[in-house]
Amino acid sequence: MANRGHMKKVLIVSAHPEPQSFNAEMARHAERVLTAAGHVVRRSDLYAMEFNPVGSAADFGERGNPDYLNYAIEQRYNQASGSLAPDISAEIEKLQWADLLVLNFPLWWCSVPAILKGWIDRVLVSGLCYGGMRFYDRGGMVGKQAMLALSLGGREHMFAADGIHGEIAPLLSPIQRCTLAYVGYEVLPPFIAWHVPYITRNARQNLLAEYTAHLEGVDALTPLTFSRMADFDENLRPRTRIPVED
Amino acid sequence: MANRGHMKKVLIVSAHPEPQSFNAEMARHAERVLTAAGHVVRRSDLYAMEFNPVGSAADFGERGNPDYLNYAIEQRYNQASGSLAPDISAEIEKLQWADLLVLNFPLWWCSVPAILKGWIDRVLVSGLCYGGMRFYDRGGMVGKQAMLALSLGGREHMFAADGIHGEIAPLLSPIQRCTLAYVGYEVLPPFIAWHVPYITRNARQNLLAEYTAHLEGVDALTPLTFSRMADFDENLRPRTRIPVED
Repeated sequence: MANRGHMKKVLIVSAHPEPQSFNAEMARHAERVLTAAGHVVRRSDLYAMEFNPVGSAADFGERGNPDYLNYAIEQRYNQASGSLAPDISAEIEKLQWADLLVLNFPLWWCSVPAILKGWIDRVLVSGLCYGGMRFYDRGGMVGKQAMLALSLGGREHMFAADGIHGEIAPLLSPIQRCTLAYVGYEVLPPFIAWHVPYITRNARQNLLAEYTAHLEGVDALTPLTFSRMADFDENLRPRTRIPVED
Repeated sequence: MANRGHMKKVLIVSAHPEPQSFNAEMARHAERVLTAAGHVVRRSDLYAMEFNPVGSAADFGERGNPDYLNYAIEQRYNQASGSLAPDISAEIEKLQWADLLVLNFPLWWCSVPAILKGWIDRVLVSGLCYGGMRFYDRGGMVGKQAMLALSLGGREHMFAADGIHGEIAPLLSPIQRCTLAYVGYEVLPPFIAWHVPYITRNARQNLLAEYTAHLEGVDALTPLTFSRMADFDENLRPRTRIPVED
């Protein structure tokens, strides 16, 4: 747990096409609150950067195999040889710098917008972030923390266990469990701004105040719990639990 | 259930950057098998099309509100006025034509590659596909079917209930439940090709034979079950169940 209770280096990656949106304001708000609390913040505003989300052969300055593109294998090869595309390298530098990664996005189709999915696809490269049995609590990002900050149109009761869409936590599993935790991040509870397009300006101010409290209390948040490699064997099958005799 | 047991119009949307990949071959294989079975197939090969996955203001020829971009509201406005960007309109035409939509993709970060996420973000427009209490079994695509066809590096035991990543079905919920079922598709069981990068040519041929059987038996597949609007009230809260007296 890096810098717990101390100054954190924070990278906020945000992904909303409207700078005046509440979601974009959440990212600016987090930057202000965290800076005021003594942390150092950098931003990747993917729409403002016109970030290219399409993982392709163009991402690689060299090729381990020029005749057949295995994307993850070429990530590993180019990460090792320092020949990843410059826009990817620039994001990796921020990723390695940051103690805390905040993904700030509107929930589109119960997932991240494509521009942020592409940041995940292209920047969390094999070799650096995971690979060779280095994932979850042995992943490349171990010692760092990550957190989602998202807004959506739906209401909380629509994402209850008996709600029309089902619970929100499993819907976030591809991101929280299979992406952030998978590469080794300690994942903090998300901040979720519900029903945003339909609420008053006053209610939005209340949401920002809640987000302030979430951010100012970041060191006291209990991380989410995911798989631990010690519970799995070399084929990633669950280890047989040996009953403790008493 | 459109054309059950009859000729189907099938749209295969595929998203792999390497045309020689097994995943790309799955899409071509499906086209051959379905055509041989008397169905009519069209393809959207997103990498070959250089499909733009970034939803933005550039998607709209007109603006309901030129000063503030609410993406879903502008989708509805531009769908109604026929002023969506031509690449979106072309995909919508295929979507409306097709009885069966097949999304063919490699599982990247337990989700679709960004280029396919952007197809979802941009093409499944509000107003046509959903909106105004028209979703799930009242969604815009009611009467049509959809199916995932995916390949991944992981093995099936890693996605068991006690597996390191957890069960695959909930990980696919953002796509199968909150996207395809949400807009009204009857969702057929997915075809999943496990462990592809690590298996022999012969094992891959066996996977294609299994996929043939899946496709030839498509009319006999039992659709997945998701929410039904009749079970929810006008605020989308679950209706109180009145006990049946006996």
